[in-house]
Amino acid sequence: MDITEFFQQSTGKWFSQRTNHHLTLKQMGGGKSDLYIELVSKDNFAITQLCQQYGIDPRLAPYGVQITWNGTVEWDQKKQTGSTLLVPVADPDKPNEGKLLREVGQSEKTPVAGQYTMGRDDVLTLITEQKTFYSEERLWFASPNLRLRSSILKQVGGGSIASFCSEIRMGGVQATNTTH
Amino acid sequence: MDITEFFQQSTGKWFSQRTNHHLTLKQMGGGKSDLYIELVSKDNFAITQLCQQYGIDPRLAPYGVQITWNGTVEWDQKKQTGSTLLVPVADPDKPNEGKLLREVGQSEKTPVAGQYTMGRDDVLTLITEQKTFYSEERLWFASPNLRLRSSILKQVGGGSIASFCSEIRMGGVQATNTTH
Repeated sequence: MDITEFFQQSTGKWFSQRTNHHLTLKQMGGGKSDLYIELVSKDNFAITQLCQQYGIDPRLAPYGVQITWNGTVEWDQKKQTGSTLLVPVADPDKPNEGKLLREVGQSEKTPVAGQYTMGRDDVLTLITEQKTFYSEERLWFASPNLRLRSSILKQVGGGSIASFCSEIRMGGVQATNTTH
Repeated sequence: MDITEFFQQSTGKWFSQRTNHHLTLKQMGGGKSDLYIELVSKDNFAITQLCQQYGIDPRLAPYGVQITWNGTVEWDQKKQTGSTLLVPVADPDKPNEGKLLREVGQSEKTPVAGQYTMGRDDVLTLITEQKTFYSEERLWFASPNLRLRSSILKQVGGGSIASFCSEIRMGGVQATNTTH
């Protein structure tokens, strides 16, 4: 599986259960969310803009991945909603590795791309390193309709958090064929 | 890392946080436990007996791994304590694969060995298939003192459960050098 096949299989509507293990505080927390994952055509202006923010030629971006969530966490009744755009840019020398650009939140001034590796065992590893944190995430399909994610987040001057998400497909593949 | 190095690095006292995601019921549950992992010399009688239960020549067993736990789960005040013995038996043709024998509980009459694979990415995958369930577990070290485990359990006529454990080392390596 290459990263495009991985994202194609990720498209659709998912029900996601998330657990955080605070390793320093030894406490757990959880949340549930609906998740919509769609592929976005490369001619979408948001992709061009995202590439420019990262100083990357937009012609290197094959497509975007739009992720939208709508859920709740245990400690807050307020709905947690949001959306982000990811853009994979393959390393010209290593087809299974590359950068993963991510829409920059308003609080983050310097965009730092994640580094992805698509393993031979079909596990997608994503490492993001910034001044204030280091995160390492693994994503894989236990079956075509069950996606799992685990991550470790190490915060500078703060605790570490291990997270786990199980995502069950609730709706069919919604991909529009925009990747070619 | 081979499986022996993996188990050597696993020895010691750990604090484990576990979360279960019930995929069918869409419910979560969790627990916390102290975990003691020790290597056991191959001349221990429990190893010989375990091999005999599985119909395996005890001379093929290099050592055993004793796991003892003492913890609580969210839905029950009662302490959860127990212990089990694992014995890896490598495939003679594939050094990174083999059977993992496990002490058989009283309710299980037919012992079925798990099948392990030690990946190039140092992830230990363990598949156990019985009449009533199928389980697939992945274990890896995020750092020498942080071990992560994820698993999927599919029960025949029942729901599926995804689990995640984060394990923090609380005590130094307690291995006695019994593996050679």
